[in-house]
Amino acid sequence: MLKFDEAQKIQSIRGALALRAEIESIVDAALERGVRNLCWLGIGGTWASAQQAVCHMKERTGMETFAINAAEYAVVGDLRIGRGSFVVFSSVSGTTTEVVAAVERAKQADAMVLGFVDDADALLARLADYCISYPGNEQLKFFMTADRFLDRAGELPEYAEMYARFDRSLPEALVSVEKAADPFAAAFAAAHKDDPLHYFVGAGTLWGATYSYAMCFWEEMHWLRSKSIHAAELFHGTLEVIGEDTPVTLFIGEDAQRPLGERAARFLAKVNRNYTVIDTRDYELPGIDTAFRGAVSHLVMRAVTGRIDVHLEALTGHDMRLRRYYRKLNY
Amino acid sequence: MLKFDEAQKIQSIRGALALRAEIESIVDAALERGVRNLCWLGIGGTWASAQQAVCHMKERTGMETFAINAAEYAVVGDLRIGRGSFVVFSSVSGTTTEVVAAVERAKQADAMVLGFVDDADALLARLADYCISYPGNEQLKFFMTADRFLDRAGELPEYAEMYARFDRSLPEALVSVEKAADPFAAAFAAAHKDDPLHYFVGAGTLWGATYSYAMCFWEEMHWLRSKSIHAAELFHGTLEVIGEDTPVTLFIGEDAQRPLGERAARFLAKVNRNYTVIDTRDYELPGIDTAFRGAVSHLVMRAVTGRIDVHLEALTGHDMRLRRYYRKLNY
Repeated sequence: MLKFDEAQKIQSIRGALALRAEIESIVDAALERGVRNLCWLGIGGTWASAQQAVCHMKERTGMETFAINAAEYAVVGDLRIGRGSFVVFSSVSGTTTEVVAAVERAKQADAMVLGFVDDADALLARLADYCISYPGNEQLKFFMTADRFLDRAGELPEYAEMYARFDRSLPEALVSVEKAADPFAAAFAAAHKDDPLHYFVGAGTLWGATYSYAMCFWEEMHWLRSKSIHAAELFHGTLEVIGEDTPVTLFIGEDAQRPLGERAARFLAKVNRNYTVIDTRDYELPGIDTAFRGAVSHLVMRAVTGRIDVHLEALTGHDMRLRRYYRKLNY
Repeated sequence: MLKFDEAQKIQSIRGALALRAEIESIVDAALERGVRNLCWLGIGGTWASAQQAVCHMKERTGMETFAINAAEYAVVGDLRIGRGSFVVFSSVSGTTTEVVAAVERAKQADAMVLGFVDDADALLARLADYCISYPGNEQLKFFMTADRFLDRAGELPEYAEMYARFDRSLPEALVSVEKAADPFAAAFAAAHKDDPLHYFVGAGTLWGATYSYAMCFWEEMHWLRSKSIHAAELFHGTLEVIGEDTPVTLFIGEDAQRPLGERAARFLAKVNRNYTVIDTRDYELPGIDTAFRGAVSHLVMRAVTGRIDVHLEALTGHDMRLRRYYRKLNY
C-alpha cells in the first residue's frame, strides 16, 4: 500500500492512548481546583476538533461546555471565560498566531489552560498551565480529555471498560480500516481528482470531520475546491444546487446524529447519480464493541479519508505540504 | 428603482419596532418565572439569525446563551434545555418540520418557548407559550428580544436611548441604504451572475448574514453556487484556493469582530483582483449615532444584499420563489 507504515501508525495511536494517565491526572487536578465550565479553543482544523468534542459531550452532559474560535476570542473576548474555566487547545507547531493571542487572553482572565502542543519547546507549550507534547492524534487527545470529564461527572459509566478495549484493540482496528478502505480510496481519488467543486456533507461528531476534510485537506493541502455542509442544513438551501451530476460525498457515523446523515442519503439517492456515502458502519473494528463505535466514528472516517489523500496526492502530483500563502504572506 | 416599494418597507420595519412593548412584557414575564439560560433555536436561515443573536449578546454578557440547530436538537436533545430555559425561534410558514419537532421536544423538557410565527394560525404558533405574529423582520425581532434580556441584566445601559433612535430613524435609514446601494447592486449582479462559484466571507454579527446570504439566497433562491467562510477561518484552509480571479465578496460590519473582516480585506488586496468589499461603514444612517451602528450592521448588510437579489433575479430571469426540492420532494 502506498505511503503506509503500519508499524508506525500502530505505535502512534498506542502512544496517544498511553497519554490517558497523564490526562486523567491533569483533569483531576483541575477539578480539585474547581471547574465551572469547559472551553475547547481552536481555529481551522483544531476548531473542527473542538466542535467534535463539544458534540460528543453534549450527547451526555448538561455541563457548560463550548467551542470557541481562537481568532474571535482574541479579538472580542468571552465573559464566560475566567476563574474556574478550563480551556483546552491543540497545536502542532505551537506558534499559531490566533491561538497564542487567545491563550494569552485566557490566562489573563485567570482560566486554567491545557495545551496539546506537539513541539514541547514552542511558545504555546510554555504558555499553557498544563502541557502534553506528543505528535498527532489530536482528536483522540481531545476525546480522552472530554471523556475524563464525563467519567468524573458520572456521565460515562462505560469509561473504564471502553478505554480498556481501546487500549487493547483501537490501534490495530484503525489500521485495518485503512487497509479495507484503500481500494475504495484509490477509485474515489481517480474519479474525483478533477471535480470543479466537491460537496461534503456530515453531521454529529462527524461534522468537524466533514468541515475539516473539505477545508484543511481538499482546499488547503490539495488545492481542490470543496464545500462542507451540515447534513441538517443541506435541506435549507444547498439542496437546490445539487443536480444529477454534482459530486457529493456524505459522511455517516454511528453517533447520535446518524439519522441526520441517513436522511441526506435518502435525498441523494433520489436526485443525484454522482454521490458517495462513506459510512463508518461498513468498516469492521475488531475488538471494539458495537456500543463503543460511535465514540470513534470520527477516527474511522479519518482512517478512510487519509487513504483518499494518499491517492489524490499520487494522482495529481500536488505535494500536500505546499502552501501558497499560509505562513508565507503577511496580512 | 426595480421592485422597490418605499412606503411598504418603512411601514414593515416601523411595525416590527412597534413589537417592542410586547417583547418586553414577554421577556419580563419569563424573567419573573425564572430564566437560567437562553436558547436560540433555528435551522437554515433562522439558524443563521440565531447565531447572530448569540454573537451580539456574547459581546456583552456572560449569561448562558446559545444557538441550537432544530434538527440536531430534535434528534439528540440537549441536557441544558429544561425548566428555566427560554427558547426563541422564528418561522414564516409556522410548519417547518424540524422546528416543529424541536419545539415539541423543548416543551416536553418544560422550557418556555417564544415563537415569532408570521402565520398566527399555524401549528408552531399554537405550540409556543408566547407567540408574536408579524410578517418578516426576523433579525430585528431576535435582536429586540436579546437586547431586552441584556437591558434587564444591566448589560446594555444604552437600551432606552438606542431604541428611541431606532424607533425614530431606523426605517428611513435602512431605506436610504437600499437607495444608496442600488447602483452598486446592479453592477455587482451584472458582474457576477455567471460566476461558477462565489465565495462570501464575513465575521461577527455578519457571519450569520454571510452564511445565509450564500446559502438561502444564492443557493436556494438563485440556484447559484456559493460558499460562505468565516473571516477567521479563511486563513486556515480556504485561502489556498483563492486565486487572482476567484470571485470573493467580503462583508464587513461595525461590530466587535470588525478587525477580522479588515484582516481578510488586507489579504484579498494582495492576492485577488476579483473581490468586492461591502462595508456597512460606507452607508449613511441618518439619525443613528455611530455608537449604535454595530447593533444594526446586519440589517444594513441585508439592505444592500436585498438590492443585489432584485437585480440578479431580473438579469438571470430566475424567479427567486422557485424551488426544485424543498417542500416538493419527500426524503
